[in-house]
Amino acid sequence: MCLATTSPRTSVTTGPMEKVCIIGSGNWGSAISIMIGNNANRLAFCESQVNMWVFEETITHRGESRKLSEVINEEHENVKYLPNIKLPSNIHAEPDLEEACRDATLLIFVLPHQFLPPLLEKVKKVIDPSCRGISLIKGMDFDASNKKPVLISQSIEEIMSKNSNSPHPFSCGVLMGANVADEVAKGQICESTLASNFDPVQGIDMNERTRQIFDSPSFRVQHVKDVAGAEVSGALKNVIALGAGMIDGLDHLGGNTKAALLRVGLKEMISFCRTFFDGVRDDTFLESCGMADLITTCYGGRNRKCAEAFTRRRVAANKSQWDAEECEDLWQNIEAELLNGQKLQGTLACKEVYMVLESRGLLDHFPLIRQIYEISFQCSPVERIVDGITVNNSVCRL
Amino acid sequence: MCLATTSPRTSVTTGPMEKVCIIGSGNWGSAISIMIGNNANRLAFCESQVNMWVFEETITHRGESRKLSEVINEEHENVKYLPNIKLPSNIHAEPDLEEACRDATLLIFVLPHQFLPPLLEKVKKVIDPSCRGISLIKGMDFDASNKKPVLISQSIEEIMSKNSNSPHPFSCGVLMGANVADEVAKGQICESTLASNFDPVQGIDMNERTRQIFDSPSFRVQHVKDVAGAEVSGALKNVIALGAGMIDGLDHLGGNTKAALLRVGLKEMISFCRTFFDGVRDDTFLESCGMADLITTCYGGRNRKCAEAFTRRRVAANKSQWDAEECEDLWQNIEAELLNGQKLQGTLACKEVYMVLESRGLLDHFPLIRQIYEISFQCSPVERIVDGITVNNSVCRL
Repeated sequence: MCLATTSPRTSVTTGPMEKVCIIGSGNWGSAISIMIGNNANRLAFCESQVNMWVFEETITHRGESRKLSEVINEEHENVKYLPNIKLPSNIHAEPDLEEACRDATLLIFVLPHQFLPPLLEKVKKVIDPSCRGISLIKGMDFDASNKKPVLISQSIEEIMSKNSNSPHPFSCGVLMGANVADEVAKGQICESTLASNFDPVQGIDMNERTRQIFDSPSFRVQHVKDVAGAEVSGALKNVIALGAGMIDGLDHLGGNTKAALLRVGLKEMISFCRTFFDGVRDDTFLESCGMADLITTCYGGRNRKCAEAFTRRRVAANKSQWDAEECEDLWQNIEAELLNGQKLQGTLACKEVYMVLESRGLLDHFPLIRQIYEISFQCSPVERIVDGITVNNSVCRL
Repeated sequence: MCLATTSPRTSVTTGPMEKVCIIGSGNWGSAISIMIGNNANRLAFCESQVNMWVFEETITHRGESRKLSEVINEEHENVKYLPNIKLPSNIHAEPDLEEACRDATLLIFVLPHQFLPPLLEKVKKVIDPSCRGISLIKGMDFDASNKKPVLISQSIEEIMSKNSNSPHPFSCGVLMGANVADEVAKGQICESTLASNFDPVQGIDMNERTRQIFDSPSFRVQHVKDVAGAEVSGALKNVIALGAGMIDGLDHLGGNTKAALLRVGLKEMISFCRTFFDGVRDDTFLESCGMADLITTCYGGRNRKCAEAFTRRRVAANKSQWDAEECEDLWQNIEAELLNGQKLQGTLACKEVYMVLESRGLLDHFPLIRQIYEISFQCSPVERIVDGITVNNSVCRL
């Protein structure tokens, strides 16, 4: 299904032309390319062609061995990562990273974040000096020496700005929200949050311009300035979803308890943001990137599902003591059985967040995250998840 | 199951003694009496006996015709409205309203709100002059001549203060939260929000004291001052839950869309509060009475269930035009089939809220509530529920 819009190409051109490049072509990258491709076709300030960098792989397609990028360009479909959905024909799959990003004014980062650093070094040599970025990556970096979390958008800004050809530092925002990729690709109505702080160019509001590049009638994008609030939500919701799965796996608990867990979870997400970042605003958490994404993840989503399985198996085993190694093994078995090769993000994020909080002596301020960690990786009984809700937590500030 | 606490009765008495009376003994009144009874037993500033006013009815119990109040007092169980759950033995069921409320210092209102006015006239003659109240009633009054909503707690304050024996005006707060009664009665962990603005008495914080009368290890109560925010949430969430049920009934929509509906719904709840009341705070909506209660109601709850059925039957009928009368009939059939004699609150609240917004010319600011109403009671197709999400709404202020 192709969600082509029928609006005519806007005729008034103002300000510099945009050349958009999507770096990544997995499930989410392919889904978002539908919005971006349609908008680039329609908006007068955008070059119509949108390059999508594809990590080239050889796939078997209709019985033949083919290159993924070629199949995408011929069939306008990412047959491997977003099958049965047509992409706009102006999305051009390009396996050469430098070719894909050449003269780009807007980079969309949508790939596993461990791949970023070497790619960015190549990218920054070929982009337009005015180039900015939006990260769709859900995760967090950690600065071990300073014991603090680092936004992925911050890491991108730092790498891109260092020894760059541009007179300006590289600015990177994020797009986060309750956006299960397959549902977005099918055109099911949803919302998303764009968080960015781009300077105006030639009197043009570049935040609004960027919003227009993503927004569509079925994908409603709202802009906020609080990048940290939006980005941290995207990472921490997966940790809270582990707790939601634990509640679901304990049959003696119901809807009241799960709603309380989501609420306390959202409070700890806000508290974590406020502890480590400036400019965090409560109302960011009332946007799609906050409560809506948390709800979607805690009622659907793989982190919830795996944590429910983890809980049910621990209850069924009826064993009073679990050691850390047994817990790790159980998570790995569940991941292998239920996720079809995908990795569980919540458990990784949980370990990193716990480490930071522990090293800062802040665990008492985050009783729910602490409890989720101790159940997941230490000997704490799964029933103790409720302790994470009933201990009153308080906002701290370093 | 009786949730008796083992804490000894606190030995230090400070300030005036509290005499608590619960006005109402339905499902929620009986459930909350467990917390109140246990706390009255334990807290030194409370008289141990807690009267619960029972609207007397004759029931058949173990083959005999019995009075409900007598069965409650003999068996410590409300066999009709909360069967198989033991109530604390210091809960005294009393069918005589004046007897129940005599010398009370704290009244807990937990009954259908249309019964209130005549009862309050009797109650105010017998209470202690210092008496205050907490309403657990979820609903809203409307002042037709001034075209504005009136909090039930405000109505209670007005009636109780007029021609009263007390030198002080009667102050009434509310208790609202994600509190499905049966789950609370079983001791499943949950949270609740107490909103009140009681003046201190003899240096004692009467808000905190009131909080202690409800709070328990499995029922965590947080206090806020924003009564309007808490109370309006309790009424409007039932309207938003109708929208959630409509999404559930349309099989082509999924989790993203439902999360967006909850988010836009919460925003309209906040906007409605801000439009008509002072002192409303965004963070009230991050309490149990706000997002947690909305989640519970939109994922469980009878308003959601009936709206899903309403949507499925309209889709199945495959009829292009529905008139208002046919919609009313459909709601009534569904109510009769699915609710076992209970009344649907969301549809009533929806009509009243719509009337107020229409009379003020404010419907454009509440596209989701408007759409829920127009689908429920006018000719709008159920698929148009998504229009309520995608139209950007804006906060207004009268």
